Amino acid sequence: MTTFFDAPKEDVAKEPDERPQVITSLGGGHGLFQTLRAARLCSPNQINAVVTVADDGGSSGRIRRELGQVPPGDLRMALAALTDDADTGGVWENLLQHRFGGHGALAGHALGNLMIVALTDMLGTSQHALDKIAELSGATGRVIPVCSEPLDLEAEVSGLDTDPRLMRQVRGQVAVASTPGQVRRVRIIPEDPQPNPEAIDAILNADLVTLGPGSWFSSVIPHILIPEVVEALSQTKAIKTVVLNLTSEPGETAGFSAERHIHVLRQHARTLNVDRVIIDSSTLTSPSERSHVERAARTLGAEVSFHDVQEEDARGRFTSVHCPAKLSTALLASYAHARSL
Amino acid sequence: MTTFFDAPKEDVAKEPDERPQVITSLGGGHGLFQTLRAARLCSPNQINAVVTVADDGGSSGRIRRELGQVPPGDLRMALAALTDDADTGGVWENLLQHRFGGHGALAGHALGNLMIVALTDMLGTSQHALDKIAELSGATGRVIPVCSEPLDLEAEVSGLDTDPRLMRQVRGQVAVASTPGQVRRVRIIPEDPQPNPEAIDAILNADLVTLGPGSWFSSVIPHILIPEVVEALSQTKAIKTVVLNLTSEPGETAGFSAERHIHVLRQHARTLNVDRVIIDSSTLTSPSERSHVERAARTLGAEVSFHDVQEEDARGRFTSVHCPAKLSTALLASYAHARSL
Repeated sequence: MTTFFDAPKEDVAKEPDERPQVITSLGGGHGLFQTLRAARLCSPNQINAVVTVADDGGSSGRIRRELGQVPPGDLRMALAALTDDADTGGVWENLLQHRFGGHGALAGHALGNLMIVALTDMLGTSQHALDKIAELSGATGRVIPVCSEPLDLEAEVSGLDTDPRLMRQVRGQVAVASTPGQVRRVRIIPEDPQPNPEAIDAILNADLVTLGPGSWFSSVIPHILIPEVVEALSQTKAIKTVVLNLTSEPGETAGFSAERHIHVLRQHARTLNVDRVIIDSSTLTSPSERSHVERAARTLGAEVSFHDVQEEDARGRFTSVHCPAKLSTALLASYAHARSL
Repeated sequence: MTTFFDAPKEDVAKEPDERPQVITSLGGGHGLFQTLRAARLCSPNQINAVVTVADDGGSSGRIRRELGQVPPGDLRMALAALTDDADTGGVWENLLQHRFGGHGALAGHALGNLMIVALTDMLGTSQHALDKIAELSGATGRVIPVCSEPLDLEAEVSGLDTDPRLMRQVRGQVAVASTPGQVRRVRIIPEDPQPNPEAIDAILNADLVTLGPGSWFSSVIPHILIPEVVEALSQTKAIKTVVLNLTSEPGETAGFSAERHIHVLRQHARTLNVDRVIIDSSTLTSPSERSHVERAARTLGAEVSFHDVQEEDARGRFTSVHCPAKLSTALLASYAHARSL
């Protein structure tokens, strides 16, 4: 059954208990950044960002190889999304996100990555480092690496040979995200990593858990490859909401339908159970497409909510990026509806 | 005339107007760090650290060559000396001073240097960057680069050839500070650089100006090679106090007497005029040595104050480092005496 919640914000979540007090968002990269901005607009008491640690590219990859630490890039971006702009005129967000120019050894490093690394050296764990930066920057939430050790990503990819049935192993997040082939399945190495207990607690103690949007195989699915994360998702009383990407991504999900995005979640975590899937209403308009995606969602135990969640540019054109204000309205509406069932 | 001010702190500067309200300290490196710690203990309303920008070694040198910015190392150390420990449990000082380990591209870089560089990129000038870090870290004063462009240091050095009369040019702060020869004279390149107007204002508006301690040829003398700095020192109503090093340094001042430290100041700035020279009482005990150094000081227009200013270790041994508490007592006593003349 399709439900529509394109109603304006003032019509929903009027009662305090219809709003989630604790929101825990799972993801990585730009998708998580936009979700955290949306979560802030839901005005909860607490926001937790549970972040992937499989990145091996750019500044993060260099730090990971050079210093053996958890790749900090996705953690930094989540921190930047949570910084308190009002108090500092945006300086913390800009400081964390600043990238060095030039052509030397520093070129391309983000300062926030280096701050996380330095504080991890100083305080002993990346969790302590992230909590300290959150404190210094007046962040409105907490950033939690899903594991305390870096993970590796490996994909089975087809289409790299003339015989399309041939599968090849592709190793590393950058390689997976940019393969010209089709990603069929990913796994993490080690396969059963020790999760960060703070990540498990953040899922168990949430009222609303979000998964996605983001690079599907490299930022979203790695979370549900960790058995304890799936277990926590099945135990939590939170409303679990998947936020689907607005488009397929060149590289890892080229040509994927909305339906297929949902299928690969289930394919990677057979016991995954969620409550809601939020899909942009403008990207999926035909009744037959909607019916397909609803059927796919039901395999996860979820109902689909169609909402206008896409950012528009100054001339009213869609940008393929989630709009924090629209997404927060959708999250609150979807949450309130799920709670009322 | 020798004056002794080894009296305990409570005996001096009881009246508010006997304390300097604005202290401006000129120097660089560890010497300036200790002076700024001493200045904080004088409880003025404002502390300004005016800092050399001629460093070309280590993290600073790499940043200077890679990104073309003012070398940040001495600026960072001054900021670290002024951070508000009480509010943050020392985290800002440790964060600024943290150096990356490993053997890769980041090894040896101080995080504070990278923060200064990033904020300079973001805000346009190193002065804006330093003021912003001071604000974020709750610093108790201001750090001011003496020039907004990096300077080069060049020395005439003897003793590098078998003929001791032969002079050779040695270029760069690291080369000057570590030469096995004897430094005879240094110059800065460019010779008449544009000073940072904030540095000139900080000298003109001070009640107490300190020069030294520190690496004499590479952190102290470069300040008085800038004509406008010497001019500001002659115009200011501040009490101008030279704090002499406790020992000669291997390399640039090997074998230098206290007297010779003073002579080379005058040799490099003929019109330099100061009020007081503070010398550690334990390093210069014989009446004839004291009389020599007093004569040297008079060529600068200064009177000498002998004070116990040396840090002791846990077992009561001197450490060749100025003790902030003792130096602050000496500065206040010397200041009060000079004002009473």
